[in-house]
Amino acid sequence: MSKDLRYLILADGLFGPEESKTANACIRYAPERVAAVLDASKAGKTAQQVIGFGGGIPIVGTLDEGIARGANALVIGIAPPGGQLPEAWIALLARAIENKLEIWSGLHTFISDVPQLAELSKKHNVTIHDLRRPPAKLPVSNGRVRSVDATIVLTVGTDCNIGKMTTQLQILGGLRSRGIRTNFAATGQTGILVEGRGIGVDAVVADFIGGAAETLVLECAKDADLVLVEGQGSIIHPSYSGVTYGLLHGSLPHAQIMCAQPSRKAINRCDWVKIPPLVDFIRLSENAAAPLRPAPVIAISLNTFDLDEDTALQTIETVKRETGLPTTDTVRFDPEPIVDAIATFHHNRPR
Amino acid sequence: MSKDLRYLILADGLFGPEESKTANACIRYAPERVAAVLDASKAGKTAQQVIGFGGGIPIVGTLDEGIARGANALVIGIAPPGGQLPEAWIALLARAIENKLEIWSGLHTFISDVPQLAELSKKHNVTIHDLRRPPAKLPVSNGRVRSVDATIVLTVGTDCNIGKMTTQLQILGGLRSRGIRTNFAATGQTGILVEGRGIGVDAVVADFIGGAAETLVLECAKDADLVLVEGQGSIIHPSYSGVTYGLLHGSLPHAQIMCAQPSRKAINRCDWVKIPPLVDFIRLSENAAAPLRPAPVIAISLNTFDLDEDTALQTIETVKRETGLPTTDTVRFDPEPIVDAIATFHHNRPR
Repeated sequence: MSKDLRYLILADGLFGPEESKTANACIRYAPERVAAVLDASKAGKTAQQVIGFGGGIPIVGTLDEGIARGANALVIGIAPPGGQLPEAWIALLARAIENKLEIWSGLHTFISDVPQLAELSKKHNVTIHDLRRPPAKLPVSNGRVRSVDATIVLTVGTDCNIGKMTTQLQILGGLRSRGIRTNFAATGQTGILVEGRGIGVDAVVADFIGGAAETLVLECAKDADLVLVEGQGSIIHPSYSGVTYGLLHGSLPHAQIMCAQPSRKAINRCDWVKIPPLVDFIRLSENAAAPLRPAPVIAISLNTFDLDEDTALQTIETVKRETGLPTTDTVRFDPEPIVDAIATFHHNRPR
Repeated sequence: MSKDLRYLILADGLFGPEESKTANACIRYAPERVAAVLDASKAGKTAQQVIGFGGGIPIVGTLDEGIARGANALVIGIAPPGGQLPEAWIALLARAIENKLEIWSGLHTFISDVPQLAELSKKHNVTIHDLRRPPAKLPVSNGRVRSVDATIVLTVGTDCNIGKMTTQLQILGGLRSRGIRTNFAATGQTGILVEGRGIGVDAVVADFIGGAAETLVLECAKDADLVLVEGQGSIIHPSYSGVTYGLLHGSLPHAQIMCAQPSRKAINRCDWVKIPPLVDFIRLSENAAAPLRPAPVIAISLNTFDLDEDTALQTIETVKRETGLPTTDTVRFDPEPIVDAIATFHHNRPR
């Protein structure tokens, strides 16, 4: 559905290595889909010059220049300062719609709820994708994915924001290059933008979390041998464990990839919840899945960005020895150990 | 907030032992709040005569008779045939609002979304309680309940519809009669109607399940020594485990009461999920809570309605022996073993 999307990414004065995470993820993982970045304050430069990757992707100062570069969709790649949709953005979005650009937004404020923009999108027959708006009709999950032949692999983690999406995007190419038809089932806004489809599971009504996961896996499995499901939260997260479990029991993975950050000892912003030792946490995760469908943890993805290189390598060796599992940092080092683990599991699992 | 509510329960032709579950639960657990039942087909009879309990609660044939009996709230106690709100109900609701009766509804169709009724409720300053509509502002949960002095007890279960609400309503009186100020934190529509307040956790957006539970417990703990939190679903339920976990990790109970039906070997309507032996399931439930706050299972509530009395009593003895925990069927037999277990836990837990 998304093959010919060409994004103009709105980053309005904030394009940078730290400030524009959504924009940066699109550029890192779907560069072929990025026509240009819109940030007048840096117009004329390239993505590479500003964020250190993205090659020659141009930064433009106006919508028209973006359209001239071939954009057919406007992506909101930053949160608006103050949370409210600025008047200037509404005017820009209106002009984008008039120029037949689809709108993709992960904001809490729904673009399609702005009457002026809703009307314009209708008039010009242009789709507004509010990624946080759940699909209108979702089923309640009930193990329908058990009928799927594809191998389902879920990334799980000790906490939020620890590398569950990044790990999968880093290994996607490796799996495909081995001839395994692999789809990425995006469950969060950034993942959805990168992939061009998905369901934001944290925005659905509680009864339908599993149903959202199930729907997504069934869709992704249609033309794939392997479905990588983007995990969310953590089974011990005091705010989001409901989403984590709904996703686990709706997607029913055959295997789990465990994501962890060695330096993180407690849940971020909930430091009263200590993260158990990794070996114990692996057992917890396997026990969480087992009553519905056993899903062994088959590899460990470590986020070592805050360790020096020697310490990072030593830590990887230690974790590998303690867990007996292939372990790497997929961003910093070679992602192949995890690609290998998944490919081996996929080829050998009993069917 | 709910002390002087007097319900007229709409059961329109369907009042009966099986057909009107919501109505019946209100009559069983909050009879002091039920002014009358509205069902023209049985007008003149008493609740006792039709459903076998409820004493002299009258069945009336018209709204005016209900009002004459002191009703100040109209409760929709049955689902409308066909799911849609019949025209006759809309007319009845309009007249109720004009007569200053609050409206309480657990229907999927929101009463306050019917323009005519919304307008009338505004005009007459009458509240429409759509119990499935989540509160507008909910926080994300983050262990705020840890500041509460009250003992928090959650009912959990091997499956849905197994006695989690009923168990708590059966023991509420026993706990209060021991001088323990006990509040019931209702999380489902029937419980909310019985209690007169609560939050339907399955209807909130996924990110806020825990926040709904947290908000409710904080509210209920204000004037209580003990808060009984109504559990939902099951940690192994393929459709609803997300809600179950959100509720567990948002309410952070000190103890759990395990509800089970001995004859049920698999999840209802999901028979591919086998229910583990009770001793194992207790361990699973304790492990689910432990990383956030340890919550031992301190008693077992069995639903033995489908066993003959001898088998039921034998089963209770067997479960008591196997688990080492106080065990009873709170509806069929004496609920005191569970009241005892909770009171003892409450008085002795380390603070």
